[in-house]
Amino acid sequence: MRAEELARKQKEISIAEFFEKNKHILGYSNPAKAIITCVKEAVDNSLDACEDAGILPDIFVKIDRVDKHYRITVEDNGPGIVREQIPRVFGKLLYGSRFHAIRQSRGQQGIGISAAVLYAQLTTGKPAVVTSKTSPKSKAVRMEIFINTRKNEPEIIREEEYDWYVSSGTRIEIEIAGSYARERKQSVYEYLRETSVVNPHAKITFVDPDGEIFEFRRLSEELPPPPKEIKPHPHGMEIGQLMAMLRYTKAKNLKDFLKSEFVRVGDKTTSEVLEKAGLNPKAKPQELERDEAAKLLNAFRETDFLPPPTDCLSPIGESLIMKSLMARYRPEWVYATTRKPSVYSGHPFLVEVGIAYGGEIKEDRVTLLRYANKIPLLYQQGGCALTKAVETVNWKSYGLQQSRDELPVGRAVILTHIASTNIPYTSESKEAVAAIPEITDEVRLALQEAGRKLREYLERKERAIKKKKKEDVLNKILPLLARKLCEILEKDEIDVDRVVARIMGNLHVKREVAEEDGVASVILRIFNFTKARRELKVFEMCSGGVEAEGAKVSQSSYATVQWDVALNPGESIEINYRVRGRIINKKPFVSGVDAELLSGAEPFGL
Amino acid sequence: MRAEELARKQKEISIAEFFEKNKHILGYSNPAKAIITCVKEAVDNSLDACEDAGILPDIFVKIDRVDKHYRITVEDNGPGIVREQIPRVFGKLLYGSRFHAIRQSRGQQGIGISAAVLYAQLTTGKPAVVTSKTSPKSKAVRMEIFINTRKNEPEIIREEEYDWYVSSGTRIEIEIAGSYARERKQSVYEYLRETSVVNPHAKITFVDPDGEIFEFRRLSEELPPPPKEIKPHPHGMEIGQLMAMLRYTKAKNLKDFLKSEFVRVGDKTTSEVLEKAGLNPKAKPQELERDEAAKLLNAFRETDFLPPPTDCLSPIGESLIMKSLMARYRPEWVYATTRKPSVYSGHPFLVEVGIAYGGEIKEDRVTLLRYANKIPLLYQQGGCALTKAVETVNWKSYGLQQSRDELPVGRAVILTHIASTNIPYTSESKEAVAAIPEITDEVRLALQEAGRKLREYLERKERAIKKKKKEDVLNKILPLLARKLCEILEKDEIDVDRVVARIMGNLHVKREVAEEDGVASVILRIFNFTKARRELKVFEMCSGGVEAEGAKVSQSSYATVQWDVALNPGESIEINYRVRGRIINKKPFVSGVDAELLSGAEPFGL
Repeated sequence: MRAEELARKQKEISIAEFFEKNKHILGYSNPAKAIITCVKEAVDNSLDACEDAGILPDIFVKIDRVDKHYRITVEDNGPGIVREQIPRVFGKLLYGSRFHAIRQSRGQQGIGISAAVLYAQLTTGKPAVVTSKTSPKSKAVRMEIFINTRKNEPEIIREEEYDWYVSSGTRIEIEIAGSYARERKQSVYEYLRETSVVNPHAKITFVDPDGEIFEFRRLSEELPPPPKEIKPHPHGMEIGQLMAMLRYTKAKNLKDFLKSEFVRVGDKTTSEVLEKAGLNPKAKPQELERDEAAKLLNAFRETDFLPPPTDCLSPIGESLIMKSLMARYRPEWVYATTRKPSVYSGHPFLVEVGIAYGGEIKEDRVTLLRYANKIPLLYQQGGCALTKAVETVNWKSYGLQQSRDELPVGRAVILTHIASTNIPYTSESKEAVAAIPEITDEVRLALQEAGRKLREYLERKERAIKKKKKEDVLNKILPLLARKLCEILEKDEIDVDRVVARIMGNLHVKREVAEEDGVASVILRIFNFTKARRELKVFEMCSGGVEAEGAKVSQSSYATVQWDVALNPGESIEINYRVRGRIINKKPFVSGVDAELLSGAEPFGL
Repeated sequence: MRAEELARKQKEISIAEFFEKNKHILGYSNPAKAIITCVKEAVDNSLDACEDAGILPDIFVKIDRVDKHYRITVEDNGPGIVREQIPRVFGKLLYGSRFHAIRQSRGQQGIGISAAVLYAQLTTGKPAVVTSKTSPKSKAVRMEIFINTRKNEPEIIREEEYDWYVSSGTRIEIEIAGSYARERKQSVYEYLRETSVVNPHAKITFVDPDGEIFEFRRLSEELPPPPKEIKPHPHGMEIGQLMAMLRYTKAKNLKDFLKSEFVRVGDKTTSEVLEKAGLNPKAKPQELERDEAAKLLNAFRETDFLPPPTDCLSPIGESLIMKSLMARYRPEWVYATTRKPSVYSGHPFLVEVGIAYGGEIKEDRVTLLRYANKIPLLYQQGGCALTKAVETVNWKSYGLQQSRDELPVGRAVILTHIASTNIPYTSESKEAVAAIPEITDEVRLALQEAGRKLREYLERKERAIKKKKKEDVLNKILPLLARKLCEILEKDEIDVDRVVARIMGNLHVKREVAEEDGVASVILRIFNFTKARRELKVFEMCSGGVEAEGAKVSQSSYATVQWDVALNPGESIEINYRVRGRIINKKPFVSGVDAELLSGAEPFGL
């Protein structure tokens, strides 16, 4: 073939044809994954739309077997989509509202849901059915949509008005060739479950192909504060981008251009930048040459700007992460940390990490939960920067087992979340985060913080176990020893408990009760054998009247008696009180001292 | 935000904007990788163009430091590109000649080189400079090209005619922000070296930023047979594709449609398919409903067609793989296998595997070379189906060390190549092959075949070593034993060598020479102690005249004397000859018996 022949074969390829041929790039690499991907795209869109509109999401997902195919239905109570936009939102790839907006959202590219429609059409030849209602006053629109892959344009097959009982919302139904996997790490159920973990303000109902209903309840009635859209930050610019911005800006001069098109650029920094660049504030942006743009960019780099504002991000939050881990894994200990926002290439991002330990978690390779902008990442764990960060932290020093550069082993679950205006996914299927050094560093720092807390907890636990063992031994031996000694010395028997408590360095409480005529006279002796000053509250619960000098007594169906006590190391105190009736609690309750330091009493409160 | 507000934010995103924002997807995730990716895209294009035009590729790659940037120049002697096509080939993404063509080629999508131009423009703001000449008679065109990212259309900044000394060819120069890595597994040098390994018909010259010149010479003057373009195979169809083909075909009826648009569909199969589908051969394809298309597709699936022809593929070939591995790694043993073509989702593909062992290869985790359509894959080894296939073969049974599901350890290099009309890359950056079961199976089968050969070689080697040790021991002890025995029995000393040879089961040669008056009378006694019949050639080399009955004598500056001998197990023979002069060779040469089975003679030939 010569040049002329080759030329005749050259032609334009539509993005729809491209992704039809390369559907694995979008997450359609096998039938089981295809179903999950379709559900994910629709649910992500629903959550984004509800949050944008300030509506608590109520999402319904249903999967039905139809012949050899599956019909996927996803319905939300979001704002709906206006009639004119429906065909392109669902039937044109690279069409969306979030691509140019700098703020955290699940969808970014305007590809996801159209790709699901494309996949349905490719594998079953059936159009997507979209129903949408934008106001309680109007009727719903129901549309059947195909994608013309050669043109990447939607084709409306049928359209009708429709009475829908909801006040607003969107429903999409697609039919795909797929295979439904149940009870797997990678399944629709698992995706929805992990989604609900970090979206406690959403209610998600799932009906599986067997008709079984799963409900992920709404745990919080509060919408997360909506992330705010920001303009680009001067430190995130590349020369090509800057040249394009200069060319297309509506600003009439450079000064206005800088002030209006960037975040964190005010009067003062504008003058500073223009002076450094040696450019005229009145110059027309549209007329700047490459070299002048390069000067402007250099001036950006040499100027300090405030980092981009971070209200464009929406973290899950430490308390919610802990709550979710507690509810889901029933561990004995949990910790979470939300790092301060940071920046990579001008994109704000933020990292969160949670660890749950022990309790019902079994000893095994730790379960790693990865999230990006509140979307669970189920695939490509190995190729993800979040995984790499976990693997390269030295967990041995935090009390877990670990082979070099592998996930640690132990009774732990680790949750990692990155929120950003621009998550650097490794591929279009949004399965793994790319290894950006700034992000990896932040994840590692967060993991190390959580790791240190884990180590502290484990050390404390270890100490308590050791102490308990020692105490148990003493408690076995001392009574025998003491009795023998007393016999020989012909002394009264000594108080073994107190001796053990002194040896162990405990805070010790001894209750002595003398009963006469239905009245109990009680002496509480409190010894501080610990090495620190202790400020305690001591509680007793009694049925009947109580006489207790200096105590707070609250009376209901029974009386709670509270003494506030402060003891220096080595000090002891004696408390006397009388009860016309019965003491309910077996041992006195004490708050203000760790359980492992307490003997003769029950710990009270956290 | 309500539906109307959301609607106003919806807009179309150009594919150029999309890839500008997601440049990591195309292989621009870090500065070192960016340079390699740019070179790769240009060189892949050059190789494709030369092969299409039947020209032995002569490719020149140069990297210069320019200020803080790098200028990359890639020049070829290909057919050139006609003037009208230059802007779009280099300045429009998703524009190319190979997307719809079903045949093996390096480029598929029409994205690569335009993405390099886009990256250059983004990071340095400089246009690409393209020079092209299509005929010795015409002048060259030189163009400076920008991409209008908002429209994904090229903009010509400057254009001029140009006297270029070559008869035809293309040169592209781009300037990018990058970082140049030398002496790494992932480098421009390594990419070009691995490229030359599987493209021995190409000459590649590389000038690095320090001006050092590396030449990868042309090892073969033969172009690989050009892969032929084929039509789609009926078994590779999905309903959506079939419906689109029906809609856009120029065929007037179903019968013509089937015969003209598919490969392996002839008169007989056409009738069979239409009958099974219950469709009228005269029906207009454009008017078929979805359900009829579904019937047609079902009929496809129920019909046997010949598999797609495989001349659309261009393997490297077993002998070339072995030659390359030999030349590059200097192993002691090498094996390669080219599997028969196979099919996944209607796409023909073919797997090749090579193993080199020992020699100069050091004991270590094995080096894995991955190729797809003759392009070396340098990144994402962990996420690649080729790697997975190697890891999941049980190499312990083939003589290498291996931890479960890891790359084996040993003195080996493993080469894997997949050739296909449609390589299923995991992402647009073409770094790893997706896990398609059909492909993984083929790779594993090929690896197992090579593994068995490796085991056979290693077992043979082991046997030889053991035998040698045994022989060494016998050679030490037997002479002493024999001498003592002979003394006691008052016998002549026995021929120890022969005894050892008999015990070891060797083919043994004994030469006895008697000299008188400058004439040597020689007796060669040959004993076949092996378990098989042996057909040998025995050689002696002499200076001076030779008398040897029944021998072939070839005389030059010395005489080579050859006897053809056949001996059954246990047989021996005596050969007599006379030399007027000297025997040159220390021991007789013997061919036709493995070295480890030979004693008293030198092995000759392979």
